[in-house]
Amino acid sequence: MPATEALRDPRSLKRLLAPRSLAVIGVSGEATGFGARTVQNMANFDGPVWCVNPKYAGQELHGRPCYASVNELPGAPDSAVIALPRTGVMAAVQALAKKGGGGAVLYASGYGETDLPERAVEEQELRDTARALGFPLLGANCLGFCDHTQRAGATFMPDYFKMTAPAGGVGVVSQSGALGYALMQAAERGFAMCHMATAGNATDLDVCDLVAFQLSMPECRSIALAVEGLRDARRLFELGELARQAGKPIVVLKLGRGEIGAKAAMSHTGSLAGSTAAWSAGFERAGMLEVEDFDALLETAGFFAKAGAPKARGVGILTPSGGAGIMAADHAEFAGLALPQPAPQTEAIFRATLPDFGSPRNPCDMTAQVATNPKYFEDCMLAMLNDDQYATVVFPVVYHNPAPGATPARMKTMEPMAAATGKPICIAWVPESLEGPGAEAADVSPNLVLFRSMRRMMNALRLWFHHHDPKPAPATPDAAASAAAAKLPAGEQTLMEAAAKTAFAEAGLPVVRELRAANAEDAATAAQSLGYPVVLKVDSPDIAHKTEVGGVQLNLGDAGAVTAAFARIKEGAAKHAPGARVDGVLVQRMEARGVELILGARRDPQFGVMVLVGLGGVQAELWKDVALEVAPVSPEGALAMLKRLKAWPLLDGFRGAAKVDVQAVADAIARFSAFAAAAGDRLEEAEINPLVCRPDGCVAVDGLMKLNG
Amino acid sequence: MPATEALRDPRSLKRLLAPRSLAVIGVSGEATGFGARTVQNMANFDGPVWCVNPKYAGQELHGRPCYASVNELPGAPDSAVIALPRTGVMAAVQALAKKGGGGAVLYASGYGETDLPERAVEEQELRDTARALGFPLLGANCLGFCDHTQRAGATFMPDYFKMTAPAGGVGVVSQSGALGYALMQAAERGFAMCHMATAGNATDLDVCDLVAFQLSMPECRSIALAVEGLRDARRLFELGELARQAGKPIVVLKLGRGEIGAKAAMSHTGSLAGSTAAWSAGFERAGMLEVEDFDALLETAGFFAKAGAPKARGVGILTPSGGAGIMAADHAEFAGLALPQPAPQTEAIFRATLPDFGSPRNPCDMTAQVATNPKYFEDCMLAMLNDDQYATVVFPVVYHNPAPGATPARMKTMEPMAAATGKPICIAWVPESLEGPGAEAADVSPNLVLFRSMRRMMNALRLWFHHHDPKPAPATPDAAASAAAAKLPAGEQTLMEAAAKTAFAEAGLPVVRELRAANAEDAATAAQSLGYPVVLKVDSPDIAHKTEVGGVQLNLGDAGAVTAAFARIKEGAAKHAPGARVDGVLVQRMEARGVELILGARRDPQFGVMVLVGLGGVQAELWKDVALEVAPVSPEGALAMLKRLKAWPLLDGFRGAAKVDVQAVADAIARFSAFAAAAGDRLEEAEINPLVCRPDGCVAVDGLMKLNG
Repeated sequence: MPATEALRDPRSLKRLLAPRSLAVIGVSGEATGFGARTVQNMANFDGPVWCVNPKYAGQELHGRPCYASVNELPGAPDSAVIALPRTGVMAAVQALAKKGGGGAVLYASGYGETDLPERAVEEQELRDTARALGFPLLGANCLGFCDHTQRAGATFMPDYFKMTAPAGGVGVVSQSGALGYALMQAAERGFAMCHMATAGNATDLDVCDLVAFQLSMPECRSIALAVEGLRDARRLFELGELARQAGKPIVVLKLGRGEIGAKAAMSHTGSLAGSTAAWSAGFERAGMLEVEDFDALLETAGFFAKAGAPKARGVGILTPSGGAGIMAADHAEFAGLALPQPAPQTEAIFRATLPDFGSPRNPCDMTAQVATNPKYFEDCMLAMLNDDQYATVVFPVVYHNPAPGATPARMKTMEPMAAATGKPICIAWVPESLEGPGAEAADVSPNLVLFRSMRRMMNALRLWFHHHDPKPAPATPDAAASAAAAKLPAGEQTLMEAAAKTAFAEAGLPVVRELRAANAEDAATAAQSLGYPVVLKVDSPDIAHKTEVGGVQLNLGDAGAVTAAFARIKEGAAKHAPGARVDGVLVQRMEARGVELILGARRDPQFGVMVLVGLGGVQAELWKDVALEVAPVSPEGALAMLKRLKAWPLLDGFRGAAKVDVQAVADAIARFSAFAAAAGDRLEEAEINPLVCRPDGCVAVDGLMKLNG
Repeated sequence: MPATEALRDPRSLKRLLAPRSLAVIGVSGEATGFGARTVQNMANFDGPVWCVNPKYAGQELHGRPCYASVNELPGAPDSAVIALPRTGVMAAVQALAKKGGGGAVLYASGYGETDLPERAVEEQELRDTARALGFPLLGANCLGFCDHTQRAGATFMPDYFKMTAPAGGVGVVSQSGALGYALMQAAERGFAMCHMATAGNATDLDVCDLVAFQLSMPECRSIALAVEGLRDARRLFELGELARQAGKPIVVLKLGRGEIGAKAAMSHTGSLAGSTAAWSAGFERAGMLEVEDFDALLETAGFFAKAGAPKARGVGILTPSGGAGIMAADHAEFAGLALPQPAPQTEAIFRATLPDFGSPRNPCDMTAQVATNPKYFEDCMLAMLNDDQYATVVFPVVYHNPAPGATPARMKTMEPMAAATGKPICIAWVPESLEGPGAEAADVSPNLVLFRSMRRMMNALRLWFHHHDPKPAPATPDAAASAAAAKLPAGEQTLMEAAAKTAFAEAGLPVVRELRAANAEDAATAAQSLGYPVVLKVDSPDIAHKTEVGGVQLNLGDAGAVTAAFARIKEGAAKHAPGARVDGVLVQRMEARGVELILGARRDPQFGVMVLVGLGGVQAELWKDVALEVAPVSPEGALAMLKRLKAWPLLDGFRGAAKVDVQAVADAIARFSAFAAAAGDRLEEAEINPLVCRPDGCVAVDGLMKLNG
């Protein structure tokens, strides 16, 4: 299902976000006011900067000409910062649009974020007005933007104008203004972005529109995105496709992952498919690279701005300190990275170069001797870079010597080696001396990437390989699934076991053979025709948890057992669910044992229909071991979900057990997901529990479906 | 079992590590030589510094008097740095001891770390000599030490003498010299240690001795320890007790955790109790606080140097940015911390103070308004600190304004509030501007603790609460277990099921009732006397994995079934284990179903006997869900192990199941651990698998034991 609102065309945002002229509306004489700070932050910008304040009309204000009103400006400003309080905003927007402006930044707060209903209405009116006028808005309640390629600081953050570091390849977009600024402060230590924009309330433009704009900038090579929520998260899919086409990876941090929130759920599925997992699945589907820590966001995006496609999947570690080499290897192992041993020719160079207390392996410990013998460092580094097994070489800087001939010089030595081999060198910055010339020399280098944490570095490398691994094919149309979804009965209702399984069978899923029986005699006849042993299950529209009322009787070997079981089911229902209507029983073939999976589908408010797989019974809940994807998935995608489960070995012949027919299981998941996706908004929830999986195939033994009206 | 070698008395190390005079043996004229750098690093030291080099005898060298030999020094140096190559070390040590010196630092490398056997011998001779002379050695292959309380830099690291930051409460000990120096570089940004020492090869003193010394320093309030390995890790227990008595927490990072290493193991136990888990269990037993990242080491130790005992278990979050508040809450939740909502009086103050777009909750979002209204910040901070539910208040600094009136002033405002309430304030440093006056103001403040990562902060708080939580009682002597261990047969051998269970029963463990039978007829008689249904198991000293040879026949209901099962077992053994001696079968009562646990005990080369518990069958291996402790554990300690398992809910009445008698299970684990600990070095491995756990108690159904000679 596509997003409700397409991404804004980046060309329509160029005047607002990469302006050639700028006006600040509402500049007071106060040097620390938001307007004055904005004017100050435009100090290094090449184009005209105009102030608007009737009180100072005709004068200079903070070194710029001031006008009485928008109407009296000498031209139409590409971009305008409205530094007025909320009550003045609407009139300023209308005046700017009339003047022919290219868009405005709104600092004012006090709109929808207050939870006052009338303010939400006011914000909606602002959005409607701006869109009717074709006049884009950044904010409200935002901190503005910086186009660092032009040194345009349309923001009230103090001291942007002092950030003189050259622009790098990372674009930063943050919903939170403060966090966007926090990232921008890397420029103070020499790591500058090409562009930074904050969405605030996203009255008009949301973070997706802003990222789409930055992707269109030639200077941009990757994006760091911090997001809290979206009106429609499916916009991420369109954005991901843009990024893919541009070859510019998006690294994303989701804030608010802890608030899974209690959800009314009829089954396990609801609680397992919490919104955090849905966001992660959404990012994966969009091809975005999710990090878990704020401090990983800029480092990881910085890595992707420099690294092309990896030429191998192995990581080499070259270290001047045994301890740092062990640290690197520990974290590489935690992140699941391969540390292949050097090829014979590489090892030969190590052996010829290193002292007898060095280690010609991977990690290669050059020992502290390397400090006094640069040639020896160069030989080892080149040998490792030239080894085809390594996509990158990790080099720990263990102490920082800021003298130009020391750490900074070492960076300058490495840069051409990385450039010549087309492989990034990853600097693991170990010292507690965190900034300074050594680190800065790496940050400004096009082929060196600096990380201040081994964990973050190895996680970034894991994402790098993952990003460039072949992706499972997307799902293709499934006529049977669509037809089955089209046949779903109208109205809000719950389909209990029999009806749900009928729908699944129509969608092409393998379903257990079963017959309905209203009395014991019919049950025995049904059992006879299905073949013993059989299972009896209570057939009631009112009973969701059959086991808890004694409503499931297993492994019945003959007619006598069936008759007795029928009586027990009636008794149990009467006792534990006295008000429930009981239509009789379902008689099923008793399925041979196998690995029991649960398949779930659920309408997620952010991403549409999601599909989930995990071990059945209490297992998925106990071990929190489920895989979640945006529906539909292809059989290949379903197989990848199965392989992500910690329980995967159980399907793959764990400790001598027979292997399950995982292709059949993957096909079933793909069909189930196609059916659920085709049902779309009709579907609240669907579940197969268990899907019994065996070497000879799989079969859905029980199921349930909840439909919206 | 105590460690093989007691910790060195700190008083015996005082001259070496906190000297009043220092000699450097082997100083060349080269300013960048290791000797010259050491002399330079003593520049701010108050006492005499002497050089030794016959070439410069009678002259000044690098500004210090130089002597021809140790013998000609004007006095006995408290501490001596031997900057000579390996071949000159032994003579210098002997000369210094003869002169009456207090110990020496050895920079030289090329000893045991080379893997050349003759060098290991040379190192052993050095150790023996030093110990015979009562002359302690730091190193070899080390980077020296810094006593920052005296500005004594007995190290060749460049530029120590430039580190003028005042000494703080953290002592740093690192096996790796480079990593010790990496930590020490925090002093360049104002965060200085009281003492730093590197053990290198630990020829004489190891990291435990060095930590014990720092604990004896009055300036020291906590320790940051980086360890790779120890000759005898049980020294950590003695050290932990010293730290407990001193009230000075030890924060520790183990390097080399990824190398679990393949171990020959007869059962699951071997592979599960990998050395990494053993180290973690050892640190826990020693009362040390383990971190997983190098970058967490100094921050966490710095926290413990400032924080006393927590006055509550809740965490308050007070933020100027909604986004940063969400980040903090996310990581608090990941770390399992409680974020209680403010008490009514606290909330009332928030409501009276905050604007309508603020949030009077926890996290309390003060909004950016707080930047322009300091009073409003102070009221909220004091209200939260005064709320009895909060042990600390987390305050995110979202951007860094280095002006004295800005971020540094904010730190100065907070310090007295923290001091007055006796609660540390935790500064979450969010900006990518990493150093500077704002951060330094927090670092030098006695009651503010700065973390540059939300994850590391919340993990440190988790450790803080854990450190001050009541600990399970230690194990008390268990006569039955000791007696059973004393009765173990001599010689290296494996005790198969029956013999192992006999020993466990003697140790007081509940064991399944069983009888041996040599033929089918005896088996039927035994079954009759035990009561049906029964289980038959092959009885063979040669078959460890009975199931794999069809050697276990379950749920036999009558004599006929027993006879048939006996035949199947004989057949299976003949087919699948043709060479094995088969003595007959064990006949056991068929136990009712329950939760199946595995108990394992294993001799760890570092920590002695360890005990392990996890789910039985394939589960522990599949889910990597085991708890490991140093044996013995008390029943209370065993219960804590059970509660640590992800599978704990299965014992605790998961989804309506009956609760297991966990007290009985804990008693069984405690007895098993007492038996294993009493067996000591005789025990290679012991296992009960499964221990069947039910609401009415537990019973060991199968077991195995491997003894050393």
